[in-house]
Order: sequence, then structure tokens, then C-alpha cells
Amino acid sequence: MLIPVILSGGAGTRLWPVSRKAHPKPFMRLADGETLAGATIKRALAVADGSTSASPTTLTVTSRDHYFLTRDIYQSIRPDANHHFLLEPEGRNTAPAIVAAARWVAERFGDEAKLLVMPADHLIKDMSVFGQAVEAAGALAEQGWLTCLGVQPTHPETGYGYIRAAADLPGGGLEIDAFVEKPDLETAERYLRSGEFLWNAGMFCFTARSILTAVDEQSPDIAQAMNRVWEEVDATSDPIELPARLFSKVRSESIDFAVMEKATQRAVVPMDCGWSDIGSWQAISDLYESDRSGNRIQGEVVLIDGNNNFIQAERRLIAAVGIQDLVIVDTEDAVLVAQKDRAQEVKAIVDELQRHNHATVTHHATTHRPWGTYTVLEDTRHCRVRRLRIKPRGVLSLQIHHRHSEHWTVVKGQAQVQVGEDHQLLEAGHTVAIPVACPHRLENKTGDTIEVIEVQTGEYLGEDDMERLEDFYGTG
Amino acid sequence: MLIPVILSGGAGTRLWPVSRKAHPKPFMRLADGETLAGATIKRALAVADGSTSASPTTLTVTSRDHYFLTRDIYQSIRPDANHHFLLEPEGRNTAPAIVAAARWVAERFGDEAKLLVMPADHLIKDMSVFGQAVEAAGALAEQGWLTCLGVQPTHPETGYGYIRAAADLPGGGLEIDAFVEKPDLETAERYLRSGEFLWNAGMFCFTARSILTAVDEQSPDIAQAMNRVWEEVDATSDPIELPARLFSKVRSESIDFAVMEKATQRAVVPMDCGWSDIGSWQAISDLYESDRSGNRIQGEVVLIDGNNNFIQAERRLIAAVGIQDLVIVDTEDAVLVAQKDRAQEVKAIVDELQRHNHATVTHHATTHRPWGTYTVLEDTRHCRVRRLRIKPRGVLSLQIHHRHSEHWTVVKGQAQVQVGEDHQLLEAGHTVAIPVACPHRLENKTGDTIEVIEVQTGEYLGEDDMERLEDFYGTG
Repeated sequence: MLIPVILSGGAGTRLWPVSRKAHPKPFMRLADGETLAGATIKRALAVADGSTSASPTTLTVTSRDHYFLTRDIYQSIRPDANHHFLLEPEGRNTAPAIVAAARWVAERFGDEAKLLVMPADHLIKDMSVFGQAVEAAGALAEQGWLTCLGVQPTHPETGYGYIRAAADLPGGGLEIDAFVEKPDLETAERYLRSGEFLWNAGMFCFTARSILTAVDEQSPDIAQAMNRVWEEVDATSDPIELPARLFSKVRSESIDFAVMEKATQRAVVPMDCGWSDIGSWQAISDLYESDRSGNRIQGEVVLIDGNNNFIQAERRLIAAVGIQDLVIVDTEDAVLVAQKDRAQEVKAIVDELQRHNHATVTHHATTHRPWGTYTVLEDTRHCRVRRLRIKPRGVLSLQIHHRHSEHWTVVKGQAQVQVGEDHQLLEAGHTVAIPVACPHRLENKTGDTIEVIEVQTGEYLGEDDMERLEDFYGTG
Repeated sequence: MLIPVILSGGAGTRLWPVSRKAHPKPFMRLADGETLAGATIKRALAVADGSTSASPTTLTVTSRDHYFLTRDIYQSIRPDANHHFLLEPEGRNTAPAIVAAARWVAERFGDEAKLLVMPADHLIKDMSVFGQAVEAAGALAEQGWLTCLGVQPTHPETGYGYIRAAADLPGGGLEIDAFVEKPDLETAERYLRSGEFLWNAGMFCFTARSILTAVDEQSPDIAQAMNRVWEEVDATSDPIELPARLFSKVRSESIDFAVMEKATQRAVVPMDCGWSDIGSWQAISDLYESDRSGNRIQGEVVLIDGNNNFIQAERRLIAAVGIQDLVIVDTEDAVLVAQKDRAQEVKAIVDELQRHNHATVTHHATTHRPWGTYTVLEDTRHCRVRRLRIKPRGVLSLQIHHRHSEHWTVVKGQAQVQVGEDHQLLEAGHTVAIPVACPHRLENKTGDTIEVIEVQTGEYLGEDDMERLEDFYGTG
């Protein structure tokens, strides 16, 4: 039994302004229209035990905020699979997440079931090489090895940790000699020449028993703190929410540092599979075809006499003249312009914005909710205008606003509307008024997405002027 | 008598995306919040005859499209002045415009009244130098000279025409030896060294009689065609609209080529007044204070480690890292990124957009109307959402839509609303529905600007689904 375990945390700040806390890197759409989360679940399903049967099983560790959208993406790709979720109240790095996943796998499928740990936001081009590597890693894992999938370096990268390989193992793979920190450029060049080093890409394969035993031995504090977390969990529920009070007490640590760097029976399976961690706009740019001048362009762009630029327009026009080696990324509420070789430093922008609590760090103009999305079209002291898109059978919470009134105009489809005690079906082109302090609810009982324009007016228009009386999803 | 004649034509395409056909360069707001049109009318009023009296007179030649906004700007600056307008049905360059202005001035104030011709979209820093130059030019004009205000060159500019001065005239100014075309760099450097050349800045002073006589002599076809135009004009009306059919037959020509280059009694008054034609984003950038790294920044911008950039944000955040010598200008629907020394080539972008009839060439997301403004917040196949801002006592036309319905929600102030035969006063927070084919009108009878959110739905949502039944302004 091999269960893919997808770790989906982190904000991907180096891909701001597209990746933001509330809508991070796994949800970004790439050149082919697919999200990284979608690409990852496909990769997971391809190697999962039971991948060819009706119902392979996957396990994803993420946060409550990202649960609904992740589940929607997975179900759109493989609705019949068993997609399970562990929801972390906060990020505590990879070690606690992997322990929780191993406990879950052990309870469901026994100690000898294997975990294939993979980050949610990487890309792999060559699926057949990946599949062979997983098979080899699985075989080693069954013999008790803590196995890494190590990526063959293609250039002297200073941004990754490396794995130094030692002796070949019978039956494939190599024993690991050491994990080494991110090197300087000179060292990275030496690593590349030597042929003995692989990139540590955060992909692991081990049995639940092996990893839990190794954590017990190498980081007993994490093992014990996770025991207390797991005691409070109802492991039969789905999704499983890890208890916040206990989980916050677990040491935040990477599995590399907590276990792999010190454990004894460690193996690595090298793979040359066209891997990318999509760690910067430069990496995104590499996914696109370039024109004869080295420009890679998405969306509505007019470029006069430029070379080697990456330009991504979303809704508005980007026009440029005479520019070289730039990354330009436009979103509804923020535009990024960066020298390409400085693209990593987008993180510094996000840090600066964070210091000022700038909204663009966390939220997009469009917010994803379990029932669909809303986009703020206008936000002034006098009024707030939102476009609501409600998925088939989506239901907003029954709510009351104490300090503002609303008008809903249905502009597409048919909306089921409750205002006070009155229930009605509202057709496109029709409006309903929601007075202050009147309970109301919007629902899509049809099979097509509907659209509603909401105009809010009143003395106070904050999102927090809302009392939820009843919530289908428990989150709004 | 000296009448300032302001010529306001041209789209200012090199200042796209802020300057557009429907809202061109004179309406751009500068660092100090003033428009170029506002700065120009102030300059005009400062030297106009009667400038210290209750009611100086100005004359502006512009198009019907720009009349209301220009008049609003002028009146906000000097409501008691007599601001007169000649409206051209199309641009025919400066010669026909100046002939029309001279005819108007002659009829109102006699042949000996002087015109001070000035473009609407230039800047002059030193008003006292300008005032002295106008005085000297006025004295020469009274003696029958066709007088230019020539700007002392500060650098070897290849983008302007030059005036070669000859002998000093008694009482100030110099006789003109020749008008010369835009030079190449080498020639421009020679001009600068010689001290005999001045920039031709499109500012002239002459009596109505002098210029009309000179046009008769040098370009009799223009004189005769303009005679036919003027015969059809009611010169007592205001604004005066030049008849389209006849005006389109007048040769399109600059006053320089039609008259000044060939005329005999020509003088130039040199001035060193801090003049700029604001001909590119580089010139706009020069108006701003730079920080220690040479960056000039407007609006919400986060810049990490950049040098010598000009960045102008309007409503959204611009974030940049590691960039040099760039111009970045963001508007609601388009963003420009240009290498600074290529800023002149923004024109090439506009040409490219024009080939594709792109909306951003002509219109902004916000459109100015006589009654106020509207801003398109959302425009999809299903609906169109607009924010209407209606000036005190502004009245929209009484209109009918045949293919879409509308909902108005008042979000600020009190709107007078007519729907069919029903007239009502709608308070903020209230809505009215306008069915297809129902006559309706919106009016602001109060002293404060009001705001209305309009949601349009229906089978067709184009601006052209509108039949005007009655229009207060004759333009919508």
C-alpha cells in the first residue's frame, strides 16, 4: 500500500502578487491553465496504490482556509478517488505534518503501509522517470529505508539543500552519506562537477512504522507532543482538524533536521525528471515558449522592441517599450516590475508590505469561499460593490448586517433568495432589497454558476459587519 | 486690448496611458494637482487685458468633446472672467484655428486688438519673465510685427523647430531671419553654441489685422475658405461651433508654414522662462523631486533597490525590485513600462493599439460628461456596472434603452429620478428599477455631488443601446 501525502503549506511569497496568503502558490494557474495543486494531485494519483482501481486514496495536509478550494480542484480531476485531509490550525513545518500523516496512514492501512511525501507546489515534467523512481523508492521503503527522491542537479544552484550519496544499494538507489546545507556558488559548482550530489526536493518515501520509529529516536519531543495531539483527534472524521491548543505546542521543525540528517538507514533514489520547485518568477517564465527576442508573454500585451522579458497580464493591458530582462506581472490590485535576476527578492517586497499590513499580502480582489467567489468592484466610504459567483448548489450563510443594507441584482441565472421570512426565486434582471438587521440568504439550486451584483450602503461597510445565523460549511 | 487665444487640440499620444483622445494632455493632473489647462488659463489671465478688472476675456479653440470639461476647469479658477469658445468639428492644424480666432477678436474688439496665441498644454515656470516677454511682444505687435515668443534653448534639442534671429529691433526683440526645421543632433549643438537660435514654442502675438492680412497674402486659399466658414457662423453665440462641411474643406496647415515662414515683418522676443512642452514622460518626470537614488514616485509604490525611475501609481499598488531608468505609469485599465530614454516611443504603442481599435487609445475607465463622470466597474456578457457621479445640478438626458434594463442604487446624496411618468426623490440606500423601453432620467437638484451605482442587465449592453429623448446639454 502506497499513500501519496501532499504537504500544502507556505505562502509562496516569492510569487507575489499572484500567490498570496489567502490564495497561495498551489492555486496559481500555469501556462496550460492547470493549477500546481492540480498537477500535483495528478502526479499523486498516477503512483498511488489503487491508481487504476476505482478509488485510490490520497492524503493532504493543509489549513482549513485552503481546504474547500483544494478539495474542489482534486474532485474536478478525479471525483471518484478518496481524497482525505488533515487540517493544521497553523503551520509547524514538515516534521509534525508528516508524523500526523504517518499516524493516519498507520491507523487506516497498518504500520507497513508506505507514505510518499510530496510538496503541493512543485512541477515534474517526466512522469515516467518519476514513476520509476517512486517504484524504486517504494522497494527500499519496504526494506525499512528512509528514502529520499533526489533530483539530478542541472546547474550549480545555491538555493537548495543537497544530498551526498555514498555506496550503491543492491536493488537500486544509493545509501545517503550526508545532508548538506545550501552551498555558496563555488561549492555548488564543485558539487555539480563531482557527480556525487543530488538536490533535496522534499520528496520522501517510507513506511509509517519506519518514520514514526525514527521520529521517536531522533526527535522524541516531537513524537510525544504529536502523541498528545493525536489522542484528541477523531481519526475517523474527514477532514480531520488537528486541535489548535496542543498542535501549537509541537516544535516547528523540518523533517530533514528533525529526522533525516541524523537517522541511520537512509537511502536516495536519483531521478532526472525535469523537476522545478517553481520558486520564483524566473522559474514560471521558464515554463513558457519564448519568441525570437526571448520574450515570454501571457495576456494582452503590446511590446515594442524589448528583449528577454516575462510579461503576464491578467485583466488589463500592459504596454512596454525598449525594456530588457524584466519580469512584469499584473493583477487586479497590484503590479510587479522586477529585474529578472532579482526575481528572488520579491520576498523583500512582501516583507515590506507586511510591515504595513497591506491587504495585497494576504488577499486578492477576488476571494474564494466554499460556495464560490466574490470580487470587490468598488470600495469607498459610501458604498461597496461586489460580484458574487455562486457555484451549482452553493449556499451562502444565513446572515444579518447591523450597520448596512444591501441590494442584490441577479445578472446571470436564477437565485433562490431568502429575505426575512420571504423566500423567492429571482430571475436575471431582478433585484431584492435587504434592509439593515434583516436575516437573508442566497442560494444556487441550479446546475449552472449564477452571478449576483451586490451593492452595500450604510454607515459601516466592513466585512466584519456580519452575524452568521446558520452556515452550511461552518466557515461562511 | 490683448486677448489670450488658447489652442487646445491634439491627443498627446506620447503621454498615453494617462492622455487619451477623450481625455487628452490638457486635462492631465500634474504633481501639484493642477491640470495643464488650469495652468494655461492662469497664465493667460495673468497677461490678459483687463486681468485686474472684474472680467478679463479669453478665447479657446477646442473641440465640442472637450468644451464642458475645459469650461469647468476655467470657471473653477476664475468664474467671473469671460471665457469664450470656438469649437472645431475636426482638427485642421493651427492656421485655420488662428484665422477663426482673429476674425472673432476683430469683430468683438476691432482690427487693432491683439491676439496672444498659446498652446493649452505647455508649462512655464517663471511667470514674471513670461509677463515681460508678452509686454515686449505686445509693443511689437502694435507696430504691425508678427511676433513670436522664442524660448532660449537649454540643450541641443532635436525635437523642436528653431527660429534664427537677426538684428535687434529698437524697443526690444529681434527681427527674424528664418524659421528652421527640426535639426539633427550635430546641427542642434551648433545652434546652441552660436547663440543665434531660439526654440519655436508655438506662442505668437499679433493684431487681428496683421495676421489676417498676412494670411491673405501668404495663404489666400486658407483665407478664402475661412471666409466661407465665417459667413455661416453666428459670431454672437457662445460657444461658436464652426460648420463642419465648410471647415473640412479648409487646408490643414500650421501657422508657421502657412504664414510665418514666408511673411515679411516678423519679430521674436527671446525669453528664458523655464518653458516645457511636457512632450514625454521624461518631461513629466522632471517636474517631480527625486529621492537620493534619482527615483521620482507618485502614489502607492514599493521600490526595493532601484535607481533613476519615474513611477506613477493611480489606484493600485506598484511594487518593483532592482530596476533602473524605467518609466512606469499605471491607470485603471492599462499599465506602461518604458525605458526612460525611449519614452518618446510611447507613440509607437499608441499607433499599434490604434491599428487594433483598442479602447485604451480613446477612452479611460472613467468618462467625463457635462453632468459629471461615469466609471465602468464591471463589463461582462451578463452585466455592466457603472458608478455615476453627478455634479450639483447635473442632469442626464431623458433616455430609453431598447435591449437592456437598469437598476439604480443611490449610494450618496439624494437623486431626483424619473421612470416613465413617475417622479421621485431617492435617498441613499434606495433603489429603482428601469424596465426595458421605459423613459428615464437622473438629476441632481442638490448642491453636493451625488453617487449612483447602476447595474445593467439584458441581451445587449453596448453604450449605443440608447435613444435620447431630451438633452439639457445637447451632448448627453
